[in-house]
Amino acid sequence: MVYLDNAATTFPKPPSVARAVQSAFTTYGANPGRSGHKMSVNTAEKVYDCREALADFFNAYDVTNVVFTQNCTQALNTAIKGILRRGDHVVISTFEHNSVLRPVHQLAVEGLITYSVADVAEGDDDQTVENFASKITSRTRLIACTHASNVCGVRLPIEKIGALAKRYGILFLVDAAQTAGVLPIDIQRCQIDFLCMAGHKCLYGPSGTGALITDRGDELNPLMAGGTGSNSLDYNQPDFMPDRFESGTVNTAGIIGLGAGIRFLQKESVEKIHKREMQLTRMLYDGLSQMEDVILYTKRPDNEHYVPVLCFNLRGLDSSTAVELLDQQGIALRGGYHCAPLAHQKLGTVEIGTIRASLSAFTTAGDIGALLGAVKKVLQKRER
Amino acid sequence: MVYLDNAATTFPKPPSVARAVQSAFTTYGANPGRSGHKMSVNTAEKVYDCREALADFFNAYDVTNVVFTQNCTQALNTAIKGILRRGDHVVISTFEHNSVLRPVHQLAVEGLITYSVADVAEGDDDQTVENFASKITSRTRLIACTHASNVCGVRLPIEKIGALAKRYGILFLVDAAQTAGVLPIDIQRCQIDFLCMAGHKCLYGPSGTGALITDRGDELNPLMAGGTGSNSLDYNQPDFMPDRFESGTVNTAGIIGLGAGIRFLQKESVEKIHKREMQLTRMLYDGLSQMEDVILYTKRPDNEHYVPVLCFNLRGLDSSTAVELLDQQGIALRGGYHCAPLAHQKLGTVEIGTIRASLSAFTTAGDIGALLGAVKKVLQKRER
Repeated sequence: MVYLDNAATTFPKPPSVARAVQSAFTTYGANPGRSGHKMSVNTAEKVYDCREALADFFNAYDVTNVVFTQNCTQALNTAIKGILRRGDHVVISTFEHNSVLRPVHQLAVEGLITYSVADVAEGDDDQTVENFASKITSRTRLIACTHASNVCGVRLPIEKIGALAKRYGILFLVDAAQTAGVLPIDIQRCQIDFLCMAGHKCLYGPSGTGALITDRGDELNPLMAGGTGSNSLDYNQPDFMPDRFESGTVNTAGIIGLGAGIRFLQKESVEKIHKREMQLTRMLYDGLSQMEDVILYTKRPDNEHYVPVLCFNLRGLDSSTAVELLDQQGIALRGGYHCAPLAHQKLGTVEIGTIRASLSAFTTAGDIGALLGAVKKVLQKRER
Repeated sequence: MVYLDNAATTFPKPPSVARAVQSAFTTYGANPGRSGHKMSVNTAEKVYDCREALADFFNAYDVTNVVFTQNCTQALNTAIKGILRRGDHVVISTFEHNSVLRPVHQLAVEGLITYSVADVAEGDDDQTVENFASKITSRTRLIACTHASNVCGVRLPIEKIGALAKRYGILFLVDAAQTAGVLPIDIQRCQIDFLCMAGHKCLYGPSGTGALITDRGDELNPLMAGGTGSNSLDYNQPDFMPDRFESGTVNTAGIIGLGAGIRFLQKESVEKIHKREMQLTRMLYDGLSQMEDVILYTKRPDNEHYVPVLCFNLRGLDSSTAVELLDQQGIALRGGYHCAPLAHQKLGTVEIGTIRASLSAFTTAGDIGALLGAVKKVLQKRER
C-alpha cells in the first residue's frame, strides 16, 4: 500500500515512537504526578521531558505553557471556549477546519459572540493580511486561523497576521494541525497567544495526543475540572498551569511516544524534510497537470506558501468514487469533504469534494510515481 | 518492585494489551472514520469492535451509546456539564473524587446549580440510600455518585440508588473509575443514565482511554465541537451519537488496546478476579490489624461492600513519609491525599492523608506478604 493520507494521521510512525510507547508498558507504567513512588516519579519525568521538548520546539515562553490534550480539537475548544466572553467578535479564515469553525459557530448560534470570515488570497500574503484587517471591528477580541489548509495545502502568513493582531490589541490563535512538525513555528516571533496542535500528525506521535501552548492560561476558563494530583483538598480547580487544564490521567503512553516523534524531527530536521516533501509535492503537481482530465485547485506549490497537501479531481468522477478506484490500485488517499466547508465553497467543490494526497517524511518518489500511474489507469478505465 | 498502586492505573497490563497497541503502528495506523481507504476502514472496524465490547460488557441499550473519552474525568465533565441547567440541584456522596466534586462545585460557584452531599454508611446500604433520599429536593435533577471510594474501597449500592433516582424521576450518574472491570455493572438493571469510566484502570487498557455510556446523548450539550468526519459540510456539530461527543481524532491505539483489556477480563472472568482480589485484600487487612501501630479506617472488607482498595496509616508518621519509606523497601503505594477531600474529612485524615494499597488481577499473595513485611520493618525502624 502507498499511504498518502498523512494529513489525517501520519503513517508509518518512526520505529522509535512505537518503541517509546512500549516503554509505557514496561518501564513507565505508573500514573504520573499522583503517587510518590519511583515508577510514578520516573513516568512523570518522561511526561515532563515531552513538555519541555514541545516548549523548546515552538519557542514557548515557559515549559508550563504546554498543556497536553487528546487531540488538536480539544486544544482548540479549550482556547476558543475558554477565552471568549459575551459580545466578543472573532475573525476566522476561509480555510478553517470544523475544529475551529464549529466551536466558533456554536458560540455564535448561542448568541454569545459574532464572527467574520476573512478570505485567504493564495500566494498573496499582503492581500490576505489586508482581508483579515478589513474584518476587524471594535469588538474583535480574537483572530483564530489555521496555519495551512487541510484541503489544499495553502499556507497563511501567521507572522504577519500575528503582527496585525498585536497592532490592534487582539488575541491570536493558530491552528497548527497541519503544520506543527512541518514548518518551524516560533510562538514568540509570530506573537501567538494560543498554539493548538495534533501530536499524531506531523509531529509523528501516537493517536490520542495533542497540545495547547499558551502563556494566557490564567485568562482561560477551563472546560473541564477534576483531579489533578495537586491542591488535592481544594474543591476548586487549581489556578496554575498546566494543571488547570489537565484534569484526569493524561495519555502517558501517547505523550512518551510524542516525545520520540519530536526527537525524530530534531534529528532529521524539519527544514530538510519540508524541502524534500515539497519537491515530491511538485513532482505530483507536475505529473497531474500533464493529464488532461485532472482538475487542480492551486498554483504550483512553492516552499514558501504551501505544505505538502495537494487536492485535485478527475473530471466526471465524484472524488469519493475516484478515491475508491485509486484504493483498489493500492493508493490510500482521502476523498469527499475534509471537514472544511468554507474551503470547499471557496474551491467550488461543494458538490463533488476533492481527492487529497498528503505526504510525510516517509513519502518517496516511488510513492508519487505509483499515484500518478494509478491516476492514469483510473482515467483510462473511465474512458472505456 | 511490588506495585500496589492499581487504583491510580493498573500495572502491569496484560501482554495482549501491549500487543494490540503495537498493531496500531503496523496494521491499524490510519485515521478511522475519516477516509474511505482500506486501512482507514479496517482501523474504524477495530474501534467499533471496542465500542461494541464496552456496550456488551455494561449492557448498554445500544452500541452508539458508547462515547470514547481521554479519561474518566472527561466522561464525567461531559455528562455533568452537559446535562445540568440553571437552577438544578445535584446530590453527590461523601466519597466523591475531585473529578465529580470539582465540576459540580465549579457550577455551584458560578451560581448555576446547588448541590448536597449524602453520607455513605459503610456496610449499611439501606442507610446510605436513606441518606441520599433525605437530600432530594424538588429541584434535584441528578444524583451523581461514585461506585466505590478511591480512598478506602467502600462501595455504594448503585442498584438501590438507581431505583431511588427513578422513583423520583431523577437522572442517575455513576462514576465507575474504581469499579469498571472490577465489578459487573449492568446499566439497565441499575437504571444508570450516565456511566463514566477510565479505560486505563481496571479495564486494563492503556492510558488516554475512558468512556461515557449514555442513552441520553440528545439531552446533553457537547462540551466540545469539531471535525467528526460526518456531516462534513454542516457548520453545526452532528446531533447523533456517538459523533456528537467525539470531535477530533480518537485515541485509536489506546482504544484498540482497551479492546484487548476487555477480552482479557472476559477470559479471566470479572467475578473470579474480584473474589481473588478480595481474599488478598482481607489477607492484607488481617495482617495489618495484627500490628499495633497500624490504623485501619474500614471494617474487614467483604466481597459485597468493598473493592480491593485499602487505606491505613502508621501511627506517628505522615502518610507521604510512610509511603516514601515503603517505596525504599520496594513497595509502590500512594500516600497523601487522593483527590477526594470529602472522603478525607469523613475518615478524619485531612491532616496526614492515608496510605493506600490497591490491588489488581496480577497481585499475588507474595506481594501482600512483601507489603506486610515492609510495614513491619518501617514500624521497627521508626521505634529506634
